[in-house]
Amino acid sequence: MPIYNAPLKDMEFILNDVFQAEVFWGNNPNLNHIDMATANAILEEMAKFSKNVILDLNRAADEEGAHFKNGQVTTPKGFKEAFQQYAEGGWIGLGADEEWGGQNMPKMLTVLADEMIFATNPSFMLYPLLSVGAGMALSHCASQEQKETYLPKIYSGEWSGTMCLTEPHAGTDLGIIKTKAEPNPDGSYNITGTKIFITSGEHDLSQNIIHLVLAKTPNAPAGSRGISLFIVPKFMVNADGSLGQRNTLGAGSLEHKMGIKGSATCVMNFDAAKGFLVGQENHGLAAMFIMMNYERLSMGIQGIGASEFAYQNAAQYATDRLQGRSSTGTKSPDKPADSILVHGDVRRMLLNGRANNEASRAFAVYVGQQLDITKFSLDTEAVKKANDRVALLTPIAKAYLTDTAFNAVLDAQMCFGGHGYIREWGMEQCVRDLRIAQIYEGTNGVQAQDLIGRKVIKNNGVSIFEYIQEIRQFALSLNGTLKIKAATLHACDEVEQITHFILEQTKIHPDFANTVAVDYLHAVGLLSFSYMFARICQAAEQKTESFYQNKLLLADFFVAKNLPGLSSRLQQIKTGASVVMQFSADYFTTLA
Amino acid sequence: MPIYNAPLKDMEFILNDVFQAEVFWGNNPNLNHIDMATANAILEEMAKFSKNVILDLNRAADEEGAHFKNGQVTTPKGFKEAFQQYAEGGWIGLGADEEWGGQNMPKMLTVLADEMIFATNPSFMLYPLLSVGAGMALSHCASQEQKETYLPKIYSGEWSGTMCLTEPHAGTDLGIIKTKAEPNPDGSYNITGTKIFITSGEHDLSQNIIHLVLAKTPNAPAGSRGISLFIVPKFMVNADGSLGQRNTLGAGSLEHKMGIKGSATCVMNFDAAKGFLVGQENHGLAAMFIMMNYERLSMGIQGIGASEFAYQNAAQYATDRLQGRSSTGTKSPDKPADSILVHGDVRRMLLNGRANNEASRAFAVYVGQQLDITKFSLDTEAVKKANDRVALLTPIAKAYLTDTAFNAVLDAQMCFGGHGYIREWGMEQCVRDLRIAQIYEGTNGVQAQDLIGRKVIKNNGVSIFEYIQEIRQFALSLNGTLKIKAATLHACDEVEQITHFILEQTKIHPDFANTVAVDYLHAVGLLSFSYMFARICQAAEQKTESFYQNKLLLADFFVAKNLPGLSSRLQQIKTGASVVMQFSADYFTTLA
Repeated sequence: MPIYNAPLKDMEFILNDVFQAEVFWGNNPNLNHIDMATANAILEEMAKFSKNVILDLNRAADEEGAHFKNGQVTTPKGFKEAFQQYAEGGWIGLGADEEWGGQNMPKMLTVLADEMIFATNPSFMLYPLLSVGAGMALSHCASQEQKETYLPKIYSGEWSGTMCLTEPHAGTDLGIIKTKAEPNPDGSYNITGTKIFITSGEHDLSQNIIHLVLAKTPNAPAGSRGISLFIVPKFMVNADGSLGQRNTLGAGSLEHKMGIKGSATCVMNFDAAKGFLVGQENHGLAAMFIMMNYERLSMGIQGIGASEFAYQNAAQYATDRLQGRSSTGTKSPDKPADSILVHGDVRRMLLNGRANNEASRAFAVYVGQQLDITKFSLDTEAVKKANDRVALLTPIAKAYLTDTAFNAVLDAQMCFGGHGYIREWGMEQCVRDLRIAQIYEGTNGVQAQDLIGRKVIKNNGVSIFEYIQEIRQFALSLNGTLKIKAATLHACDEVEQITHFILEQTKIHPDFANTVAVDYLHAVGLLSFSYMFARICQAAEQKTESFYQNKLLLADFFVAKNLPGLSSRLQQIKTGASVVMQFSADYFTTLA
Repeated sequence: MPIYNAPLKDMEFILNDVFQAEVFWGNNPNLNHIDMATANAILEEMAKFSKNVILDLNRAADEEGAHFKNGQVTTPKGFKEAFQQYAEGGWIGLGADEEWGGQNMPKMLTVLADEMIFATNPSFMLYPLLSVGAGMALSHCASQEQKETYLPKIYSGEWSGTMCLTEPHAGTDLGIIKTKAEPNPDGSYNITGTKIFITSGEHDLSQNIIHLVLAKTPNAPAGSRGISLFIVPKFMVNADGSLGQRNTLGAGSLEHKMGIKGSATCVMNFDAAKGFLVGQENHGLAAMFIMMNYERLSMGIQGIGASEFAYQNAAQYATDRLQGRSSTGTKSPDKPADSILVHGDVRRMLLNGRANNEASRAFAVYVGQQLDITKFSLDTEAVKKANDRVALLTPIAKAYLTDTAFNAVLDAQMCFGGHGYIREWGMEQCVRDLRIAQIYEGTNGVQAQDLIGRKVIKNNGVSIFEYIQEIRQFALSLNGTLKIKAATLHACDEVEQITHFILEQTKIHPDFANTVAVDYLHAVGLLSFSYMFARICQAAEQKTESFYQNKLLLADFFVAKNLPGLSSRLQQIKTGASVVMQFSADYFTTLA
């Protein structure tokens, strides 16, 4: 039976020692309703809930899956009761505005709570996650009446939400969607089309499902500038808030997937379903991206959760499993063999995981803090800067955190040997469940294009250079005995230089950025982790307790065994585009 | 529906143009029964069989799995008929001695035939594979009577074979197995114990199953020097070769796995089952390693098959899928979007796969040729040298080829976007099915220990330095305009230097080798692929047909986008062991 214990001490350390949460909150009149005592109490509560309620449902939900019958979807055993508990605990609205029934908690904190549910049951987590994302999009773009109608019931869990973007022929390229929105005389629209890969498109956890649907009005401009966003409820909502008639939409089938089998991924058919425009016509994509950016950070948190879960189980297995003897002499002469923890390669795999967990978690809190500035700060200059930083780092949070987490989870599975391949142990499920995080909400390749294209080249590197400068300034402030200092400064120089190189090359070769985008994303990711370890070391170095001193050792491990990946990435970028682009299109499908 | 077409032209190119198979065969009296015409005919036959019979069963077998009921195992629909066809085609004995009904074909050729079955249905392939492995161990170590009794029926497919090593508490560390072998007065033994993870331990494809079981006799020395190998048939064999009574052994259950679900992985219980010693008492591990080495190369071939299969499907999908527009301007103005092949990042992923396929395939044929020298050559010096080379390269063939293939398969899955996560498309199955190849037959971490410990440090680097010298000599003979020349020579120097460094450090830090083993394996793997591309380029450069010229471009891609990984590996090795070993054992399971 897989284990999980929320890493509460590390969470508190990152929140308060690394990012001075209490000072940050106390200094902001919009955030001084929260202090560390409250934050810790919330995290402790979630730690209990995730361990005692959610974890137990995870393995069985994978075996059982979600069920589809005559358009009805039933979630796996226990999900309904757990969702009710989750909703009653106020968790859906943890970060939502008080006006709509939320608890108004900062993102710095909610990322940590979310991590625990992603760690223990990612399929379950996707149900509330989509509600929160839909709520966020509505909070930003919907009319006051729409907000009043939908938001309180979404945050209470009575209703839930979805995002309906993808169509069979249109995923990354939403400009070519075909779903139509025909205006009715009463101001509503009739929505007709088929959407696929719709998470929580149909299920039995809530009384109503509020679909946010991208569609095109009759005379909309071609491409992505002609997309509008609509609220399309499963049940119509009467003026008094009660549920009216069933809308003409429904799930056509469930997708059969590699993992997250407890999550109902639906094909949704809209057949002149009644919908209501959100915001302005043809501005749907911008509204949807509010939701998408939120989801993208969440996917990174899915990675952290999986990596932490896998690490804890692998570390326990490695401690218990006896095979072979240490190269430096027998460690457990009273036992038939030593624990496999004596083997350097097993330690290497575990430390990859642990370094990933701690750097990723710090990075999520860092991005969370930037999001909190955008939402709560009164300083418009700070808000602008934080918005810019969030835009820059969202693709890193989504793609880099899920790429490194996937590798960490594979390492953890490998620590189990053959048992890692057996379903009962739960490690192979963790691999399957996490794999989707690299794919959905824009594949990690698409994230890399977003980073290099929209976030770096488009503003001639201004945002990334500011970020590098922040990192450099911080690193310069560190004690010179810390290995992370020189390593981070070196990484700053390297990433800065390669960014200049990319800006130059892009002017000459329009294809260049696309071919090197993933290498660049990983280079910026490695620099970001180096920054996080720099901040961790600064917070830890004055403290003698082994908890803190081990963080310095973990940073040394990162510098020695992970950060060298940077040099390969940079070399690969320097080799340019033609070596990729010079093949004819028919080469790829021609074997002879 | 996934597609597959055997890459026959590349196979012929590698066999004959790169490794001069026809000359090699013609010059050896033990091999001149084969020429390229025969080889091509065999590969064409297997190409048809794999495409028309085996591929069709793959998806359904994943959904259906193998069935267990009252100790009986039923294989998925169609496996029985396909196995019969496979056996009747003489495929089980393709590489086996004529004396036992085999076709005596060289390993250079059989690796290519095996690749096709691994590509189209890895679960199916494991049934005959274990038979062939068992046959090989018996050919080397069994008595003449045992060979006569078992080998012809194994190669005809009437019977099949297994290898029973792992026990619940003993996998990598076979020295601590508990299965007992009690001698009987008639010279047989009673075998008692439980074995797990037994591929094809029970099934309905053959009339009898010949288990090769590792066990300890009553007064055997402790550890791996006290292990003996036994033939333990499911049904006893009468003097006339007919089947007698059922032996007291059986499958206790089937393992539920991440993939290869059509393969019956059994828990096997031996309850005083009658067994017959193979070779000498206490020499069982050596006998089993003959089989293991064969299986280990086969796992590499499983990687090649999966990588080729995934590549072909991803290339086709990428060609057909229309999303977005090329950065250099619209390529298909008549269509709503361009093929995603216009995007450099999609090409990068596909080229990773293609470079992996072609280098891996060449490497498998290279190792196959070395194995053929060990088996067929009359020159004892050449045999000795080839044996040494095979020993050195077996862990590379197993671990490096499966590590790179797994990454290639992940890239191929990513080309499908969300569809890659959906079962119907077959890509996620390919990922799940291949994952086991990194784990079984000794995890890839254990392979890395084997390489650095037994194959490099133990003989003070003699074998690896000879291999590097062969590569260097070959690279020096290349035309200087080929980028692969300088790249390979540089890689030779780098790997040579780091080997010296490892030999030095190991004397000082006994833990060092273990901590850097995986990085070292990947460094040697990258050098090996560079060598293979060097040989491919030499064979291709004089020919103007695009088939050959594209191989030069693919080598350039490898040099630019894959080989730079070497520098990170070397840097990581140079950082030493203490950064990994300095954590206390309880650190790993302590979160606070």
